[in-house]
Amino acid sequence: MQLKVPEHQVAGHIAKDGKPGPLVDDKGRFFKPLQGDSRGENEVKFYESFSTNTEVPDHIRRFFPVYHGTQAVEGSDGAAMIVLENLLADYSKPSVMDVKMGSRTWYPDASEEYVQKCLKKDTGTTTVSAGFRISGFEVYDHKESSFWKPERKLLRGLKVDGARLTLRKFVSSNSLSDMGSKPDSAFVSSVYGGSNGVLTQLLELKTWFENQTLYHFNSCSILMVYENESILKGNDDDARPQVKLVDFAHVLDGNGVIDHNFLGGLCSFINFLRDILQSPDESAES
Amino acid sequence: MQLKVPEHQVAGHIAKDGKPGPLVDDKGRFFKPLQGDSRGENEVKFYESFSTNTEVPDHIRRFFPVYHGTQAVEGSDGAAMIVLENLLADYSKPSVMDVKMGSRTWYPDASEEYVQKCLKKDTGTTTVSAGFRISGFEVYDHKESSFWKPERKLLRGLKVDGARLTLRKFVSSNSLSDMGSKPDSAFVSSVYGGSNGVLTQLLELKTWFENQTLYHFNSCSILMVYENESILKGNDDDARPQVKLVDFAHVLDGNGVIDHNFLGGLCSFINFLRDILQSPDESAES
Repeated sequence: MQLKVPEHQVAGHIAKDGKPGPLVDDKGRFFKPLQGDSRGENEVKFYESFSTNTEVPDHIRRFFPVYHGTQAVEGSDGAAMIVLENLLADYSKPSVMDVKMGSRTWYPDASEEYVQKCLKKDTGTTTVSAGFRISGFEVYDHKESSFWKPERKLLRGLKVDGARLTLRKFVSSNSLSDMGSKPDSAFVSSVYGGSNGVLTQLLELKTWFENQTLYHFNSCSILMVYENESILKGNDDDARPQVKLVDFAHVLDGNGVIDHNFLGGLCSFINFLRDILQSPDESAES
Repeated sequence: MQLKVPEHQVAGHIAKDGKPGPLVDDKGRFFKPLQGDSRGENEVKFYESFSTNTEVPDHIRRFFPVYHGTQAVEGSDGAAMIVLENLLADYSKPSVMDVKMGSRTWYPDASEEYVQKCLKKDTGTTTVSAGFRISGFEVYDHKESSFWKPERKLLRGLKVDGARLTLRKFVSSNSLSDMGSKPDSAFVSSVYGGSNGVLTQLLELKTWFENQTLYHFNSCSILMVYENESILKGNDDDARPQVKLVDFAHVLDGNGVIDHNFLGGLCSFINFLRDILQSPDESAES
Protein backbone atom coordinates (compact mmCIF):
# COMPACT_ATOMS: atom_id res chain seq x y z
CA MET A 1 0.00 0.00 0.00
CA GLN A 2 1.46 3.33 -1.12
CA LEU A 3 0.64 6.08 1.37
CA LYS A 4 1.51 9.72 1.11
CA VAL A 5 0.83 13.02 2.83
CA PRO A 6 -2.32 14.67 1.42
CA GLU A 7 -1.68 17.67 -0.81
CA HIS A 8 -4.55 19.91 0.20
CA GLN A 9 -5.18 19.63 3.92
CA VAL A 10 -6.45 23.00 5.16
CA ALA A 11 -7.20 22.42 8.84
CA GLY A 12 -6.89 19.85 11.57
CA HIS A 13 -3.88 17.96 12.89
CA ILE A 14 -0.75 17.42 10.84
CA ALA A 15 2.34 15.29 11.45
CA LYS A 16 4.25 16.92 14.30
CA ASP A 17 6.61 16.01 17.11
CA GLY A 18 6.87 12.44 15.89
CA LYS A 19 3.10 11.95 15.85
CA PRO A 20 1.74 10.77 12.51
CA GLY A 21 -0.44 13.06 10.41
CA PRO A 22 -3.14 11.99 7.96
CA LEU A 23 -2.24 10.01 4.85
CA VAL A 24 -3.90 9.13 1.56
CA ASP A 25 -3.54 6.17 -0.80
CA ASP A 26 -4.09 6.06 -4.57
CA LYS A 27 -7.40 4.22 -4.21
CA GLY A 28 -9.32 7.20 -2.90
CA ARG A 29 -8.90 6.55 0.78
CA PHE A 30 -7.95 8.96 3.57
CA PHE A 31 -6.22 7.71 6.72
CA LYS A 32 -6.81 9.81 9.81
CA PRO A 33 -4.74 9.09 12.94
CA LEU A 34 -6.85 8.49 16.03
CA GLN A 35 -6.52 11.57 18.21
CA GLY A 36 -5.22 11.12 21.73
CA ASP A 37 -7.26 10.76 24.94
CA SER A 38 -10.93 9.94 24.27
CA ARG A 39 -11.28 11.98 21.10
CA GLY A 40 -10.11 9.37 18.62
CA GLU A 41 -12.20 6.75 20.35
CA ASN A 42 -15.24 9.01 20.26
CA GLU A 43 -14.80 9.72 16.55
CA VAL A 44 -14.63 5.99 15.78
CA LYS A 45 -17.74 5.49 17.91
CA PHE A 46 -19.54 8.12 15.86
CA TYR A 47 -18.55 6.63 12.49
CA GLU A 48 -19.56 3.13 13.67
CA SER A 49 -22.93 4.44 14.85
CA PHE A 50 -23.61 6.71 11.88
CA SER A 51 -22.61 4.22 9.19
CA THR A 52 -25.11 1.66 10.50
CA ASN A 53 -27.87 4.00 11.65
CA THR A 54 -31.00 3.29 9.61
CA GLU A 55 -32.63 6.52 10.81
CA VAL A 56 -30.21 8.58 8.71
CA PRO A 57 -31.83 9.26 5.32
CA ASP A 58 -29.84 8.31 2.22
CA HIS A 59 -29.84 11.84 0.80
CA ILE A 60 -28.14 13.01 4.03
CA ARG A 61 -25.52 10.26 4.03
CA ARG A 62 -23.86 11.86 1.00
CA PHE A 63 -22.85 14.83 3.18
CA PHE A 64 -20.57 12.57 5.23
CA PRO A 65 -17.31 10.84 4.27
CA VAL A 66 -17.72 7.12 3.61
CA TYR A 67 -16.29 5.11 6.53
CA HIS A 68 -14.06 2.08 5.88
CA GLY A 69 -13.32 1.09 9.49
CA THR A 70 -10.04 1.43 11.35
CA GLN A 71 -6.64 0.02 10.44
CA ALA A 72 -3.15 -0.20 11.88
CA VAL A 73 -0.88 1.48 9.34
CA GLU A 74 2.69 0.34 8.76
CA GLY A 75 5.32 3.04 8.54
CA SER A 76 3.28 5.15 10.92
CA ASP A 77 4.58 3.30 13.96
CA GLY A 78 1.67 0.94 13.47
CA ALA A 79 -0.65 3.65 14.73
CA ALA A 80 -4.39 3.01 14.46
CA MET A 81 -6.00 5.10 11.72
CA ILE A 82 -9.60 5.81 10.79
CA VAL A 83 -10.02 4.89 7.14
CA LEU A 84 -12.30 7.27 5.26
CA GLU A 85 -13.19 8.29 1.75
CA ASN A 86 -10.63 10.80 0.42
CA LEU A 87 -12.97 13.70 -0.32
CA LEU A 88 -10.47 15.33 -2.70
CA ALA A 89 -9.51 12.21 -4.65
CA ASP A 90 -11.57 13.16 -7.71
CA TYR A 91 -10.41 16.76 -7.82
CA SER A 92 -7.43 17.89 -9.85
CA LYS A 93 -7.11 21.54 -8.72
CA PRO A 94 -9.43 21.86 -5.75
CA SER A 95 -10.19 24.98 -3.74
CA VAL A 96 -11.02 23.85 -0.21
CA MET A 97 -12.42 25.57 2.86
CA ASP A 98 -12.99 24.26 6.39
CA VAL A 99 -15.69 26.08 8.39
CA LYS A 100 -16.16 25.15 12.04
CA MET A 101 -19.85 25.40 12.86
CA GLY A 102 -21.75 26.61 15.91
CA SER A 103 -21.67 29.58 18.26
CA ARG A 104 -19.75 27.49 20.79
CA THR A 105 -17.16 24.75 20.21
CA TRP A 106 -17.31 23.26 23.71
CA TYR A 107 -19.86 20.64 24.64
CA PRO A 108 -22.10 20.28 27.69
CA ASP A 109 -20.36 18.43 30.55
CA ALA A 110 -16.88 19.32 29.28
CA SER A 111 -14.39 20.19 32.01
CA GLU A 112 -14.32 23.76 33.29
CA GLU A 113 -10.81 24.12 31.90
CA TYR A 114 -11.82 22.92 28.43
CA VAL A 115 -14.89 25.18 28.38
CA GLN A 116 -12.80 28.23 29.26
CA LYS A 117 -10.18 27.39 26.64
CA CYS A 118 -12.82 27.06 23.93
CA LEU A 119 -14.75 30.12 25.14
CA LYS A 120 -11.67 32.27 24.73
CA LYS A 121 -11.16 31.09 21.15
CA ASP A 122 -14.89 31.38 20.40
CA THR A 123 -15.15 35.00 21.53
CA GLY A 124 -11.84 35.92 19.85
CA THR A 125 -12.94 34.56 16.46
CA THR A 126 -16.30 34.81 14.66
CA THR A 127 -17.70 31.73 16.42
CA VAL A 128 -19.74 33.72 18.95
CA SER A 129 -20.54 36.65 16.69
CA ALA A 130 -21.36 34.81 13.45
CA GLY A 131 -22.07 31.25 14.61
CA PHE A 132 -19.14 29.80 12.63
CA ARG A 133 -15.45 30.41 11.97
CA ILE A 134 -13.25 29.77 8.97
CA SER A 135 -10.58 27.44 10.32
CA GLY A 136 -8.66 26.92 7.11
CA PHE A 137 -8.75 27.22 3.35
CA GLU A 138 -6.69 26.79 0.25
CA VAL A 139 -7.62 28.34 -3.07
CA TYR A 140 -6.30 27.79 -6.53
CA ASP A 141 -4.97 31.14 -7.68
CA HIS A 142 -5.89 31.56 -11.35
CA LYS A 143 -3.55 34.49 -11.88
CA GLU A 144 -0.51 32.74 -10.37
CA SER A 145 -1.47 29.22 -11.50
CA SER A 146 -0.70 27.92 -8.03
CA PHE A 147 -2.37 27.17 -4.74
CA TRP A 148 -2.54 29.78 -2.03
CA LYS A 149 -3.10 29.12 1.66
CA PRO A 150 -3.23 31.79 4.38
CA GLU A 151 -1.33 31.55 7.63
CA ARG A 152 -3.34 30.28 10.56
CA LYS A 153 -2.61 33.48 12.46
CA LEU A 154 -4.32 35.50 9.77
CA LEU A 155 -7.43 33.35 9.96
CA ARG A 156 -7.60 33.51 13.75
CA GLY A 157 -7.78 37.29 13.59
CA LEU A 158 -10.76 37.40 11.22
CA LYS A 159 -13.82 39.33 12.37
CA VAL A 160 -17.26 39.21 10.74
CA ASP A 161 -16.34 41.50 7.82
CA GLY A 162 -13.13 39.58 7.24
CA ALA A 163 -15.03 36.29 7.14
CA ARG A 164 -17.44 37.80 4.63
CA LEU A 165 -14.56 38.97 2.45
CA THR A 166 -12.85 35.56 2.70
CA LEU A 167 -16.03 33.82 1.55
CA ARG A 168 -15.94 36.12 -1.52
CA LYS A 169 -12.25 35.44 -2.14
CA PHE A 170 -12.92 31.72 -2.06
CA VAL A 171 -14.96 32.07 -5.27
CA SER A 172 -12.88 34.76 -6.99
CA SER A 173 -10.44 34.56 -9.89
CA ASN A 174 -8.05 37.33 -8.85
CA SER A 175 -4.74 36.84 -7.18
CA LEU A 176 -5.14 36.18 -3.49
CA SER A 177 -1.63 36.72 -2.26
CA ASP A 178 -2.36 40.41 -2.72
CA MET A 179 -4.61 40.94 0.30
CA GLY A 180 -5.59 44.40 -0.91
CA SER A 181 -7.14 43.18 -4.16
CA LYS A 182 -10.88 43.40 -4.52
CA PRO A 183 -12.32 39.92 -5.06
CA ASP A 184 -14.28 39.62 -8.31
CA SER A 185 -16.53 36.76 -7.12
CA ALA A 186 -16.18 35.30 -10.63
CA PHE A 187 -17.29 31.78 -9.65
CA VAL A 188 -20.00 32.70 -7.16
CA SER A 189 -22.92 31.47 -9.25
CA SER A 190 -21.23 28.22 -10.27
CA VAL A 191 -19.97 27.37 -6.75
CA TYR A 192 -22.41 28.87 -4.22
CA GLY A 193 -25.39 29.12 -6.59
CA GLY A 194 -27.25 26.76 -8.90
CA SER A 195 -29.26 23.63 -8.32
CA ASN A 196 -26.17 21.60 -7.32
CA GLY A 197 -24.34 24.44 -5.62
CA VAL A 198 -23.20 24.88 -2.04
CA LEU A 199 -26.28 26.85 -0.96
CA THR A 200 -28.71 24.21 -2.24
CA GLN A 201 -26.74 21.51 -0.43
CA LEU A 202 -26.65 23.51 2.80
CA LEU A 203 -30.42 24.07 2.65
CA GLU A 204 -30.90 20.32 2.36
CA LEU A 205 -28.69 19.80 5.41
CA LYS A 206 -30.62 22.50 7.26
CA THR A 207 -33.93 20.71 6.74
CA TRP A 208 -32.43 17.60 8.30
CA PHE A 209 -30.96 19.54 11.23
CA GLU A 210 -34.36 21.07 11.97
CA ASN A 211 -35.63 17.62 12.81
CA GLN A 212 -32.78 15.27 13.63
CA THR A 213 -32.22 14.55 17.32
CA LEU A 214 -29.75 11.67 16.82
CA TYR A 215 -26.46 13.52 17.16
CA HIS A 216 -25.07 16.81 18.41
CA PHE A 217 -22.17 17.77 16.17
CA ASN A 218 -20.07 19.76 18.65
CA SER A 219 -16.98 21.38 17.15
CA CYS A 220 -17.68 19.82 13.77
CA SER A 221 -16.73 21.41 10.43
CA ILE A 222 -18.31 21.86 7.05
CA LEU A 223 -15.81 21.28 4.25
CA MET A 224 -16.50 23.03 0.94
CA VAL A 225 -14.61 22.01 -2.17
CA TYR A 226 -14.82 22.77 -5.88
CA GLU A 227 -12.78 22.03 -9.02
CA ASN A 228 -10.73 24.77 -10.69
CA GLU A 229 -9.56 22.59 -13.56
CA SER A 230 -12.99 22.77 -15.20
CA ILE A 231 -13.11 26.55 -14.72
CA LEU A 232 -9.67 26.87 -16.36
CA LYS A 233 -11.10 24.99 -19.33
CA GLY A 234 -13.90 27.53 -19.53
CA ASN A 235 -16.48 25.13 -18.19
CA ASP A 236 -17.69 26.90 -15.04
CA ASP A 237 -20.72 24.66 -14.81
CA ASP A 238 -18.55 21.68 -14.03
CA ALA A 239 -17.07 23.10 -10.81
CA ARG A 240 -18.63 20.18 -8.86
CA PRO A 241 -19.10 22.08 -5.58
CA GLN A 242 -19.33 19.69 -2.68
CA VAL A 243 -20.32 20.07 0.98
CA LYS A 244 -19.19 17.53 3.58
CA LEU A 245 -19.27 17.34 7.35
CA VAL A 246 -15.96 16.38 8.96
CA ASP A 247 -14.39 16.03 12.44
CA PHE A 248 -16.55 14.09 14.84
CA ALA A 249 -14.34 13.81 17.91
CA HIS A 250 -16.89 15.65 20.06
CA VAL A 251 -20.18 14.35 18.69
CA LEU A 252 -22.66 13.43 21.42
CA ASP A 253 -26.07 11.76 21.50
CA GLY A 254 -28.91 14.17 20.79
CA ASN A 255 -31.17 12.69 23.47
CA GLY A 256 -34.31 13.90 21.78
CA VAL A 257 -33.12 17.51 21.36
CA ILE A 258 -32.13 19.00 17.99
CA ASP A 259 -28.57 20.32 17.54
CA HIS A 260 -29.59 23.97 17.93
CA ASN A 261 -25.95 25.06 18.20
CA PHE A 262 -24.96 23.63 14.81
CA LEU A 263 -28.30 24.61 13.24
CA GLY A 264 -28.08 28.24 14.37
CA GLY A 265 -24.58 28.53 12.92
CA LEU A 266 -25.65 26.81 9.73
CA CYS A 267 -28.52 29.27 9.26
CA SER A 268 -26.10 32.16 9.75
CA PHE A 269 -23.60 30.68 7.29
CA ILE A 270 -26.40 30.19 4.76
CA ASN A 271 -27.28 33.85 5.16
CA PHE A 272 -23.69 34.94 4.50
CA LEU A 273 -23.63 32.95 1.23
CA ARG A 274 -27.07 34.24 0.26
CA ASP A 275 -25.86 37.83 0.76
CA ILE A 276 -22.88 37.19 -1.51
CA LEU A 277 -25.07 35.57 -4.17
CA GLN A 278 -27.44 38.52 -4.05
CA SER A 279 -24.72 41.15 -4.42
CA PRO A 280 -21.63 39.51 -5.91
CA ASP A 281 -20.10 42.85 -6.89
CA GLU A 282 -20.20 44.43 -3.50
CA SER A 283 -16.90 43.95 -1.75
CA ALA A 284 -16.32 47.07 0.25
CA GLU A 285 -16.33 45.26 3.59
CA SER A 286 -12.98 44.34 5.02
CA MET B 1 -54.62 57.22 36.91
CA GLN B 2 -55.31 54.06 38.92
CA LEU B 3 -52.28 51.78 38.97
CA LYS B 4 -52.01 48.37 40.55
CA VAL B 5 -49.65 45.43 40.77
CA PRO B 6 -50.25 42.98 37.89
CA GLU B 7 -51.95 39.73 38.88
CA HIS B 8 -50.12 37.29 36.66
CA GLN B 9 -46.48 38.22 36.42
CA VAL B 10 -44.47 35.01 36.04
CA ALA B 11 -40.88 36.19 35.61
CA GLY B 12 -38.75 39.29 35.70
CA HIS B 13 -38.28 41.92 38.37
CA ILE B 14 -40.85 42.57 41.08
CA ALA B 15 -41.13 45.30 43.70
CA LYS B 16 -38.36 44.66 46.24
CA ASP B 17 -36.17 46.55 48.70
CA GLY B 18 -38.01 49.79 48.07
CA LYS B 19 -37.55 49.56 44.31
CA PRO B 20 -40.79 49.75 42.33
CA GLY B 21 -42.07 46.72 40.43
CA PRO B 22 -44.23 46.76 37.29
CA LEU B 23 -47.76 48.19 37.41
CA VAL B 24 -50.85 48.05 35.22
CA ASP B 25 -53.74 50.48 34.69
CA ASP B 26 -57.33 49.69 33.68
CA LYS B 27 -56.82 50.97 30.15
CA GLY B 28 -54.71 48.02 29.04
CA ARG B 29 -51.30 49.48 29.74
CA PHE B 30 -48.32 47.91 31.48
CA PHE B 31 -45.74 50.08 33.27
CA LYS B 32 -42.27 48.58 33.49
CA PRO B 33 -39.68 50.30 35.70
CA LEU B 34 -36.45 51.14 33.90
CA GLN B 35 -33.83 48.70 35.10
CA GLY B 36 -30.71 50.11 36.69
CA ASP B 37 -27.34 50.74 34.99
CA SER B 38 -27.56 50.72 31.18
CA ARG B 39 -30.22 48.02 30.89
CA GLY B 40 -33.28 50.24 31.21
CA GLU B 41 -31.76 52.74 28.83
CA ASN B 42 -30.96 50.01 26.34
CA GLU B 43 -34.51 48.63 26.49
CA VAL B 44 -35.96 52.09 25.78
CA LYS B 45 -33.50 52.45 22.91
CA PHE B 46 -34.75 49.16 21.47
CA TYR B 47 -38.43 50.09 21.73
CA GLU B 48 -37.77 53.51 20.16
CA SER B 49 -35.87 51.88 17.30
CA PHE B 50 -38.23 48.96 16.77
CA SER B 51 -41.45 50.99 16.91
CA THR B 52 -40.26 53.26 14.11
CA ASN B 53 -38.31 50.75 12.03
CA THR B 54 -39.93 50.44 8.62
CA GLU B 55 -37.93 47.30 7.85
CA VAL B 56 -39.95 45.31 10.37
CA PRO B 57 -42.88 43.65 8.55
CA ASP B 58 -46.38 44.29 9.94
CA HIS B 59 -47.11 40.60 10.50
CA ILE B 60 -44.03 40.45 12.76
CA ARG B 61 -44.93 43.56 14.74
CA ARG B 62 -47.83 41.71 16.34
CA PHE B 63 -45.33 39.49 18.18
CA PHE B 64 -44.09 42.50 20.16
CA PRO B 65 -45.85 44.56 22.86
CA VAL B 66 -47.09 47.92 21.62
CA TYR B 67 -44.85 50.71 22.93
CA HIS B 68 -46.35 53.90 24.39
CA GLY B 69 -43.16 55.74 25.32
CA THR B 70 -41.79 56.38 28.79
CA GLN B 71 -43.45 58.16 31.70
CA ALA B 72 -42.62 59.30 35.22
CA VAL B 73 -45.14 57.57 37.47
CA GLU B 74 -46.44 59.19 40.66
CA GLY B 75 -46.58 57.02 43.71
CA SER B 76 -43.59 55.11 42.44
CA ASP B 77 -41.18 57.75 43.68
CA GLY B 78 -41.61 59.41 40.32
CA ALA B 79 -39.55 56.64 38.77
CA ALA B 80 -39.36 56.51 34.97
CA MET B 81 -41.38 53.66 33.51
CA ILE B 82 -41.60 52.12 30.04
CA VAL B 83 -45.26 52.18 29.04
CA LEU B 84 -46.31 49.09 27.10
CA GLU B 85 -49.38 47.22 26.04
CA ASN B 86 -50.62 45.01 28.90
CA LEU B 87 -50.46 41.64 27.14
CA LEU B 88 -52.86 40.03 29.63
CA ALA B 89 -55.48 42.81 29.70
CA ASP B 90 -57.97 40.90 27.55
CA TYR B 91 -57.59 37.61 29.39
CA SER B 92 -59.82 36.65 32.30
CA LYS B 93 -58.12 33.44 33.49
CA PRO B 94 -54.81 33.29 31.64
CA SER B 95 -52.19 30.59 31.78
CA VAL B 96 -48.83 32.25 31.15
CA MET B 97 -45.30 30.98 30.51
CA ASP B 98 -42.03 32.87 30.09
CA VAL B 99 -39.35 31.04 28.07
CA LYS B 100 -35.89 32.60 27.85
CA MET B 101 -34.49 31.88 24.40
CA GLY B 102 -31.01 31.00 23.17
CA SER B 103 -28.20 28.64 24.12
CA ARG B 104 -26.43 31.52 25.85
CA THR B 105 -27.88 34.50 27.73
CA TRP B 106 -24.72 36.63 27.68
CA TYR B 107 -23.90 38.88 24.77
CA PRO B 108 -20.66 39.46 22.85
CA ASP B 109 -18.50 42.14 24.50
CA ALA B 110 -20.08 41.66 27.92
CA SER B 111 -17.66 41.84 30.84
CA GLU B 112 -15.78 38.69 31.79
CA GLU B 113 -17.63 38.66 35.12
CA TYR B 114 -21.05 38.91 33.49
CA VAL B 115 -20.22 36.18 30.96
CA GLN B 116 -19.13 33.81 33.74
CA LYS B 117 -22.24 34.54 35.81
CA CYS B 118 -24.52 33.84 32.84
CA LEU B 119 -22.50 30.81 31.75
CA LYS B 120 -22.99 29.20 35.15
CA LYS B 121 -26.76 29.67 34.97
CA ASP B 122 -26.86 28.58 31.34
CA THR B 123 -25.05 25.29 31.96
CA GLY B 124 -27.03 24.64 35.16
CA THR B 125 -30.40 25.06 33.42
CA THR B 126 -31.59 23.84 30.01
CA THR B 127 -30.22 26.92 28.21
CA VAL B 128 -27.08 25.15 26.95
CA SER B 129 -28.63 21.72 26.51
CA ALA B 130 -31.99 22.68 24.96
CA GLY B 131 -31.39 26.21 23.66
CA PHE B 132 -34.03 27.73 25.98
CA ARG B 133 -35.12 27.66 29.61
CA ILE B 134 -38.50 28.06 31.27
CA SER B 135 -38.01 31.05 33.54
CA GLY B 136 -41.52 31.23 34.93
CA PHE B 137 -45.11 30.15 34.46
CA GLU B 138 -48.53 30.30 36.03
CA VAL B 139 -51.32 27.95 35.06
CA TYR B 140 -54.99 28.02 35.84
CA ASP B 141 -55.70 24.80 37.70
CA HIS B 142 -59.06 23.50 36.45
CA LYS B 143 -59.42 20.99 39.30
CA GLU B 144 -58.73 23.52 42.04
CA SER B 145 -60.30 26.52 40.26
CA SER B 146 -57.28 28.60 41.13
CA PHE B 147 -53.95 29.70 39.73
CA TRP B 148 -50.83 27.71 40.41
CA LYS B 149 -47.27 28.99 40.15
CA PRO B 150 -44.14 26.96 40.90
CA GLU B 151 -41.32 28.21 43.08
CA ARG B 152 -38.39 29.67 41.19
CA LYS B 153 -36.08 27.11 42.80
CA LEU B 154 -38.06 24.30 41.24
CA LEU B 155 -37.79 25.86 37.79
CA ARG B 156 -34.07 26.46 38.09
CA GLY B 157 -33.50 22.76 38.67
CA LEU B 158 -35.33 21.64 35.54
CA LYS B 159 -33.39 19.47 33.11
CA VAL B 160 -34.46 18.62 29.55
CA ASP B 161 -37.02 15.99 30.58
CA GLY B 162 -38.43 18.29 33.25
CA ALA B 163 -38.83 21.10 30.70
CA ARG B 164 -40.61 18.69 28.38
CA LEU B 165 -42.98 17.63 31.17
CA THR B 166 -43.61 21.26 32.15
CA LEU B 167 -44.55 22.12 28.56
CA ARG B 168 -47.13 19.31 28.77
CA LYS B 169 -48.44 20.49 32.14
CA PHE B 170 -48.91 23.95 30.73
CA VAL B 171 -51.66 22.60 28.45
CA SER B 172 -53.17 20.03 30.83
CA SER B 173 -56.40 20.07 32.83
CA ASN B 174 -55.28 18.06 35.84
CA SER B 175 -54.25 19.47 39.16
CA LEU B 176 -50.70 20.75 39.07
CA SER B 177 -49.98 21.15 42.74
CA ASP B 178 -49.63 17.37 42.74
CA MET B 179 -46.26 17.09 41.01
CA GLY B 180 -46.66 13.33 40.63
CA SER B 181 -49.79 13.57 38.50
CA LYS B 182 -49.54 12.59 34.87
CA PRO B 183 -50.45 15.58 32.68
CA ASP B 184 -53.37 14.84 30.33
CA SER B 185 -52.38 17.43 27.68
CA ALA B 186 -56.11 18.16 27.33
CA PHE B 187 -55.62 21.55 25.62
CA VAL B 188 -52.62 20.68 23.48
CA SER B 189 -54.41 20.91 20.13
CA SER B 190 -56.25 24.14 20.98
CA VAL B 191 -53.18 25.90 22.43
CA TYR B 192 -50.07 24.54 20.68
CA GLY B 193 -51.88 23.27 17.56
CA GLY B 194 -54.27 24.74 15.03
CA SER B 195 -53.95 27.49 12.46
CA ASN B 196 -53.82 30.19 15.16
CA GLY B 197 -51.93 28.15 17.71
CA VAL B 198 -48.55 28.68 19.33
CA LEU B 199 -46.68 26.45 16.86
CA THR B 200 -48.03 28.29 13.82
CA GLN B 201 -47.06 31.61 15.37
CA LEU B 202 -43.56 30.37 16.25
CA LEU B 203 -43.02 29.12 12.70
CA GLU B 204 -43.90 32.57 11.41
CA LEU B 205 -41.38 34.11 13.80
CA LYS B 206 -38.79 31.56 12.70
CA THR B 207 -39.12 32.58 9.04
CA TRP B 208 -38.39 36.15 10.04
CA PHE B 209 -35.42 35.17 12.21
CA GLU B 210 -33.89 33.22 9.31
CA ASN B 211 -33.50 36.50 7.47
CA GLN B 212 -33.58 39.45 9.84
CA THR B 213 -30.21 41.01 10.66
CA LEU B 214 -31.59 44.11 12.39
CA TYR B 215 -31.44 43.00 16.02
CA HIS B 216 -29.84 40.34 18.20
CA PHE B 217 -32.29 39.47 20.95
CA ASN B 218 -29.85 38.47 23.69
CA SER B 219 -31.48 37.14 26.85
CA CYS B 220 -34.94 37.81 25.46
CA SER B 221 -38.04 35.76 26.34
CA ILE B 222 -41.01 34.33 24.50
CA LEU B 223 -44.21 34.78 26.48
CA MET B 224 -47.00 32.28 25.79
CA VAL B 225 -50.50 32.96 27.06
CA TYR B 226 -53.95 31.43 26.58
CA GLU B 227 -57.44 31.86 28.04
CA ASN B 228 -58.88 29.26 30.41
CA GLU B 229 -62.26 30.97 30.77
CA SER B 230 -63.28 29.85 27.30
CA ILE B 231 -62.12 26.30 28.02
CA LEU B 232 -64.19 26.26 31.24
CA LYS B 233 -67.19 27.21 29.12
CA GLY B 234 -66.51 24.22 26.89
CA ASN B 235 -65.23 26.34 24.06
CA ASP B 236 -61.67 25.07 23.61
CA ASP B 237 -61.39 26.72 20.22
CA ASP B 238 -61.50 30.13 21.80
CA ALA B 239 -58.34 29.70 23.90
CA ARG B 240 -56.73 32.61 22.02
CA PRO B 241 -53.13 31.38 22.32
CA GLN B 242 -50.67 34.24 21.93
CA VAL B 243 -46.91 34.44 21.47
CA LYS B 244 -45.02 37.63 22.36
CA LEU B 245 -41.39 38.58 22.66
CA VAL B 246 -40.50 40.43 25.87
CA ASP B 247 -37.42 41.78 27.71
CA PHE B 248 -35.11 43.76 25.49
CA ALA B 249 -32.53 45.06 27.94
CA HIS B 250 -29.71 43.27 26.09
CA VAL B 251 -30.77 43.65 22.47
CA LEU B 252 -27.90 44.66 20.19
CA ASP B 253 -27.61 45.66 16.54
CA GLY B 254 -27.42 42.69 14.20
CA ASN B 255 -24.74 44.27 12.00
CA GLY B 256 -25.69 42.16 9.01
CA VAL B 257 -25.62 38.83 10.86
CA ILE B 258 -28.77 36.87 11.75
CA ASP B 259 -29.51 36.16 15.42
CA HIS B 260 -28.32 32.54 15.24
CA ASN B 261 -28.42 32.21 19.02
CA PHE B 262 -32.13 33.06 19.29
CA LEU B 263 -32.95 31.19 16.08
CA GLY B 264 -31.25 27.96 17.18
CA GLY B 265 -33.14 28.02 20.48
CA LEU B 266 -36.39 28.82 18.71
CA CYS B 267 -35.96 25.83 16.37
CA SER B 268 -35.33 23.60 19.38
CA PHE B 269 -38.37 24.96 21.22
CA ILE B 270 -40.49 24.40 18.11
CA ASN B 271 -39.30 20.81 18.05
CA PHE B 272 -40.31 20.28 21.70
CA LEU B 273 -43.84 21.53 20.96
CA ARG B 274 -44.03 19.46 17.78
CA ASP B 275 -43.07 16.35 19.76
CA ILE B 276 -45.86 17.03 22.26
CA LEU B 277 -48.40 17.64 19.50
CA GLN B 278 -47.40 14.39 17.80
CA SER B 279 -47.70 12.29 20.95
CA PRO B 280 -49.92 14.13 23.44
CA ASP B 281 -50.51 10.98 25.51
CA GLU B 282 -46.93 10.15 26.15
CA SER B 283 -45.85 11.55 29.48
CA ALA B 284 -43.42 9.07 30.91
CA GLU B 285 -40.48 11.47 30.88
CA SER B 286 -39.76 13.34 34.08
